[in-house]
Order: sequence, then C-alpha cells, then structure tokens
Amino acid sequence: MKISDRLRDDAGNIWKSIIEHPFVAELCDGTLPMEKFKFYILQDYNYLIESMRNFSIISSRTEALQEMKEVLYLAYLESQSELSAYEEFVKKIGCTIDEARDVEPIPVAVSYVSYLLSTSTLKSYEESIASVLPCYWSYMEIARHYQSKLKMNQNKLYTEWASVYSLKSYRDMVTRMRNLVDNTGENFPYKKLKRAFITASRYEYMYWDAVYNMIDWPV
Amino acid sequence: MKISDRLRDDAGNIWKSIIEHPFVAELCDGTLPMEKFKFYILQDYNYLIESMRNFSIISSRTEALQEMKEVLYLAYLESQSELSAYEEFVKKIGCTIDEARDVEPIPVAVSYVSYLLSTSTLKSYEESIASVLPCYWSYMEIARHYQSKLKMNQNKLYTEWASVYSLKSYRDMVTRMRNLVDNTGENFPYKKLKRAFITASRYEYMYWDAVYNMIDWPV
Amino acid sequence: MKISDRLRDDAGNIWKSIIEHPFVAELCDGTLPMEKFKFYILQDYNYLIESMRNFSIISSRTEALQEMKEVLYLAYLESQSELSAYEEFVKKIGCTIDEARDVEPIPVAVSYVSYLLSTSTLKSYEESIASVLPCYWSYMEIARHYQSKLKMNQNKLYTEWASVYSLKSYRDMVTRMRNLVDNTGENFPYKKLKRAFITASRYEYMYWDAVYNMIDWPV
Amino acid sequence: MKISDRLRDDAGNIWKSIIEHPFVAELCDGTLPMEKFKFYILQDYNYLIESMRNFSIISSRTEALQEMKEVLYLAYLESQSELSAYEEFVKKIGCTIDEARDVEPIPVAVSYVSYLLSTSTLKSYEESIASVLPCYWSYMEIARHYQSKLKMNQNKLYTEWASVYSLKSYRDMVTRMRNLVDNTGENFPYKKLKRAFITASRYEYMYWDAVYNMIDWPV
Repeated sequence: MKISDRLRDDAGNIWKSIIEHPFVAELCDGTLPMEKFKFYILQDYNYLIESMRNFSIISSRTEALQEMKEVLYLAYLESQSELSAYEEFVKKIGCTIDEARDVEPIPVAVSYVSYLLSTSTLKSYEESIASVLPCYWSYMEIARHYQSKLKMNQNKLYTEWASVYSLKSYRDMVTRMRNLVDNTGENFPYKKLKRAFITASRYEYMYWDAVYNMIDWPV
Repeated sequence: MKISDRLRDDAGNIWKSIIEHPFVAELCDGTLPMEKFKFYILQDYNYLIESMRNFSIISSRTEALQEMKEVLYLAYLESQSELSAYEEFVKKIGCTIDEARDVEPIPVAVSYVSYLLSTSTLKSYEESIASVLPCYWSYMEIARHYQSKLKMNQNKLYTEWASVYSLKSYRDMVTRMRNLVDNTGENFPYKKLKRAFITASRYEYMYWDAVYNMIDWPV
Repeated sequence: MKISDRLRDDAGNIWKSIIEHPFVAELCDGTLPMEKFKFYILQDYNYLIESMRNFSIISSRTEALQEMKEVLYLAYLESQSELSAYEEFVKKIGCTIDEARDVEPIPVAVSYVSYLLSTSTLKSYEESIASVLPCYWSYMEIARHYQSKLKMNQNKLYTEWASVYSLKSYRDMVTRMRNLVDNTGENFPYKKLKRAFITASRYEYMYWDAVYNMIDWPV
Repeated sequence: MKISDRLRDDAGNIWKSIIEHPFVAELCDGTLPMEKFKFYILQDYNYLIESMRNFSIISSRTEALQEMKEVLYLAYLESQSELSAYEEFVKKIGCTIDEARDVEPIPVAVSYVSYLLSTSTLKSYEESIASVLPCYWSYMEIARHYQSKLKMNQNKLYTEWASVYSLKSYRDMVTRMRNLVDNTGENFPYKKLKRAFITASRYEYMYWDAVYNMIDWPV
C-alpha cells in the first residue's frame, strides 16, 4: 500500500466530513448563496498566494535534485494555472486584484497558512510535502464526487470554479504530489507524516466550515 | 507616546475581553473547575516550549548585537523561570513530564504557535518581537487586575500559578520586551507592528476561550 | 541612475578583474586547457543546483505577489534552461549526472553557495536579490565582451558554453533580475545592497580563480 | 566508540594541522607579532557574535525539549563568557566595541560563518550541532597541547587569551557540546555528520591561516 493511500485511509473520516460539508455540497449543486461564494473566493485567493510561497520554501528543503525541481515545477504550475484562474474569479465577482489582496484573512486562513509555513521552515521536507497534499488532493476528490451534480448545476460561476479540478492537468499535478509523498521513503517515520497529513486535513475541514459560516475574529 | 503603549491602546478592546474572560476571572477568584485548569496547564506547557523555540529564532533575526543578546537572555530566562514553574504544575496536577509532552495540542494552540513561528522565520525581527509581547504582557496585566481577588482566592494552586506574574523578575522581563518593541524605531512601518500585535492578542483571547470550553478538533 | 547601474559602477574594479581573468579569457579564445574546463563544469553544475534552491528561498521572502511570482519564474526558467544545458555539458565531458553530483565542492564553491543561502534565509529579500545578480549579469557581460574572440574560437565545447549567455532569453532573464533590484526601492539602505552585490562579485572573481588554479581544500 | 571520538579521529590530520599551525604555535609560545594578534581578535570578535546567532538557530531546530534547552543554555553561556572576554580584549588592543563591529570580515570569516548559518537554517539539527563542535573543541585541545609553553609565555595578553580555554567551565561547555553530538543517535547517517565536522574543521584551519597571513579580499 502506497504511503499516500495509507494517509488517505487514516484521514478517512475527516475527508468524508470535508466532502459532505454543506459549503461543498451546496457549491456543487448550485444552491450555495453567492455571498458565501464571494467570501470564499477572496479568502482563498490570498490562501493560494501563501500556498505558492510555501511550495517555494519546500523546494529548498530537499537535497535531492529531482525532488527540488519537481516541487519548483509544481509551484510554477500553481502560479500559472489555479492562481490565474482565481484572478479571473476575483474580477468576475466584481473585485479588483488590489481589493482582493487587501481583504483581511479570517482566523482559520491565518492559522492554516501559518501551520503550513512553519512546517516548511522548521520541520522536515517529508512532513512539509505531506502537509500540502490534502488541499490539492481533496479538491480533486470533491470534483470527482460531485461529477453528476455539477453537470446539472445551473450556476455557471460555480461549475467554472469546479471545472479546474477535473482537468487532466490538475489531476496530473495531484498525482505528482502524491508521488512525492510516496517517495519520502520507508526510513522516514510514518507517524510524523500522518500527523502532518491529518492536521492539514483538519484545517481543510475547518476552512470550509469557516467560510460557510463566515467566521471572523471574535474580538 | 511609546510604541508599546500605542499598540496596547489599539488593542484595547481585545485586551479588555482577555482580562474579563470567564477562564481568567474564575481562575483568579478561585471558582474555575479544576478540570479546566488541568486542561489549560497541559496545553500551556507545550505552548511555552514552542515559545522558547520562538525566542531562539527571533534572537537570530536581528543584526544588532545588543538586541540579539537581549532576546537570547529572555529565552534563557523563560527556560529557567516560567517553564520550570510549569514543570512543577504538571507534577502537581498529577502528570509526568512525558505525559504532558504527549498531550495533543488543541487547534488554537497549533494555530497560535504556528502564527508566531511563521512570523519569526519569514517576517521581520520587528514584527516577530511585537507578536510575542501580548502573551507576556497580558499575563502581567491579569495578575495586576485581579490582585485583590487573588488575595482572597482559596485555591492554593491557582494563587501559586498567578504569583509568578506578579514577581518583580517577571515584570522586569515584560519591561525588557516592551523596550525591544519601543526600540524597533520610527523607520519601521507601525501598520505592520500593529497587525502582529493585534493578531497575537486575538489568539490570546481565543486561547483562553478554547481552554475554557475545551475546544478540540471538530473532526 | 538605476540602482543596478550604481551597483555595477561601485563594483567596477572587481568586474574588470572578473572579465579579464585568465580562465575567462582563455575559455573565450579557446586556449583554456580542457582539464580546467572539465573541473569547472563539474563544480559549476553543483553550484547551479544550489543557485536554484536559493531562488526558491528568495521567492518566499517577499510579501509582494508580483515579485514572488517573478522570482519563482526565474527559478523555474533557470531549472529549465541553464541547468539543462549543464547536464548536457556534463555528458559531453564524459561524466554521468550521478558522478557529477558526487563531486566534492571546492572551498570557494562551498563558501559562495553558503554566503548566498545564508543571505536568503537570514537577511532581507532586497539583499538576497542583490546578491544573486552578479553571477548572472557578469556571465552576460563576459559573452558580450568576448563576442569577436568567441567567433574565432575553434573549441566547439567552449563556444557552445558561451552561446547560452548571448541568447536573447538569457539577456531577458538578466534584465528581469536587474529590474527586481531596481525596484527594491529608495527606502531600502543602498549600503546593504552594495555590500551584498560587492561580496557576491568578489566570490565570482574568487570562483574563477579557484577553478583556474584548481584550488582544493588545503587540509 | 562515541560519535564525537570517531569524528575527531576522522579529522585527525586536519586537527594536527590546526594545532601545529604557526599562528597557534607562536601565540602559545609568545612569539606571534602583536599586529597579527590584533587582526585576529577583531575578526574573531565578529565571528563569535555570528556564532551566538548560530546557536540560537540550532536551538530552534530540534523537537527534543532537553536538547533545545541545552543548546539555548550554551548560547547564553557563550554570550556571557567568551564573548564578554573578547570585549575586554578588544579594549585591551586599543579599540572600541563600535570600531570592532565596523571591521570588515575577511573572506574566510564570511565563508565560515555563512557555512555554519546555512547549515543551521537549511540542514538538519544533527549536522548543525556537528558543525559547531570543531571550533570550541579544538580551542580546548590547543590550550591543552601548549599547556607547558603557555606557562613560560611572557606575553600577558596571549596567556590571558589562552587561559579561557583551560577553564573548567569552558571544558564543561565542550563536554556538553560533545554529548549533544554523541546523542544524535545511530539512526542519523554518520556520513552527513562527518561531512559537517570535517568541513568546519577545514574552515578552522583556513581561518588560522588567513589571520596569520592577513588574507583579505583579492579584489
């Protein structure tokens, strides 16, 4: 059993909660209030920028040339594909890029991003690459799970958003990330990989929940 | 007006919420359920260890010799005083140090610590030192605010906990931290210092709230 | 006067010594002993890998989205162009990639790379981007300076090596790096940029000198 | 055989060259020209400051609480003992601290410090702690080796300098550092520890050689 499959299994309940979360379900069947979608896009745009930064750091944390190049390539790909797509979404929901950049991140966004960045700067390459996988992989799973609902979804903006995650190019990117995790090898303690993967998966769930309920700082 | 005073003023509402939070109020008047106190001590012990790590990083992020030595001294002081006191508390509530180290951090603990560590590794020395101040300073303010209530508090464990934060040595440490923030100088954009100070203050509040309600990972 | 021009001026003597160094002159007129060229290629291949790592780090050190993307793009470009070219050279001089990776770096290579990496991890984005410029820019200047000699150079390997640095794509890359330095802005102390640029230029010179004289560890 | 003993053995030739280097021998028998000593002290004062920064970073790179505290303690000890002693030496050779801080580091000093810092920020805790050991341990060995010569040495400044490295407190510090290396454990590849220890030992030798010959930047 590949390491990424084992991690996915161990996070089974969390991933089920992610996929079935109201925000995700309503986004895919078209019933999500637009207000919530806009809120999400503005938060997620800033998340993606920090995710790109995070990939840059991870690329620098492995001595293996092949992995360094691969993570660098994924960072570049991300900057050219998903991030560009989000810049289009930002405009479509009526914001300028500058306005989007000025949006204050909600607590879960600061927390999730900080978790990823502090892992990449202070922990191992192995834990870092395991911690970025849940975000990209679970989006692919969401697109797959709601495939038929998305076909009947009348909200063009929502189906456009989801279409990115069904693209062959996106699925290839996830496969490449999974390969990196699978290659972290038998010498690295699985327990540490698992903690990174589970923690990031939990933040994914909490992120969906926070944008659904638009949870801002309590004080 | 000193920078630290200005930051304190700008975080006025947040600090009021911190000081008046039920956990803090009940801890100081002795009515806090012991179960919540134990929960807090085990979480906070692990927080303090990461806080010590954080001071080590910050010490390395300034070119000024005097500041580097000062932050290093504060890290060392912290490792000798508050951390040692917590190791005693851990034993008093019936745990071994190993058990305490094995406690899984709750979401707010992971988030707050990650925020501090990612600030210290990726942002400026100035923002880093501003982000550690709220924790230490607000504890001193709590001890001061509840001074008379603490005198009548019958729970020996709680008054012992609080006594650390009234010590001259602790107040001196806070003064030294404030001086470091005050010395970050006029050339550094106040806006960035403020964001760091406010964000850390918000995490302080959310931390008290999470230990009071024992908020664990939702999934 | 643009910042990069001012830096170039301030490093005038060092750059003159670089361009006129026997290794560079003999490489461009074809008289360089092949043994020295091979020695250089194997050292430089490993240098380029660390340089790619370095760009990844620098990309993570700026908050400005445009600069983050730009540095990431340069890192990716570098991994696709110059590094690939070197992998060809490694084969042409009769080595496998694995053999090349196993070559022990000479003192100046460890020192130069360590200087760049410690700048990127511990100093500012501005100093980091200034410290990587001399390597890429001076190679372009070398190709320009020896343009006519290179036309008469009979050593096909040497002219092929040099041809990379006359390509429009390479010159564009240097222009983009210079723009990044020019945009570091008036608020950042020129003195610090200068120290970074001068130090890296000095290492460039020492690097050419060390590969010419094949200077290994003295003990 | 303990790991530190094995490392010391593997670096045997390099350490012999260090201990017998003219600078070291002449310093211990009193025949070293004062001009060279002054040159050394000013360079080394700045080295020690960066070494303190380096210990701060290393302290942050281990998850083990005991080791984190230990490295932090060593950093603090260093800032209180050897660094303070050097501030006295700076004054005794007729310089102010500010003048000493303004001295431009020679190439080997920039290189050695950069090597240590880039190891601590980008490689493992284990390699980092192995890379700092040669400096502190070899000074103790120097003091031991020249014990009898130092007794007859008429240069009070030189014997005072050497006396630090015969102190029980200094020898204890070295023992604690060796213990940290011995505890890096059997799971960590010895090959990597060796590379770090050997490289740092080589820089130690090159440092003595550079201050003896007062080797500045060639351009």
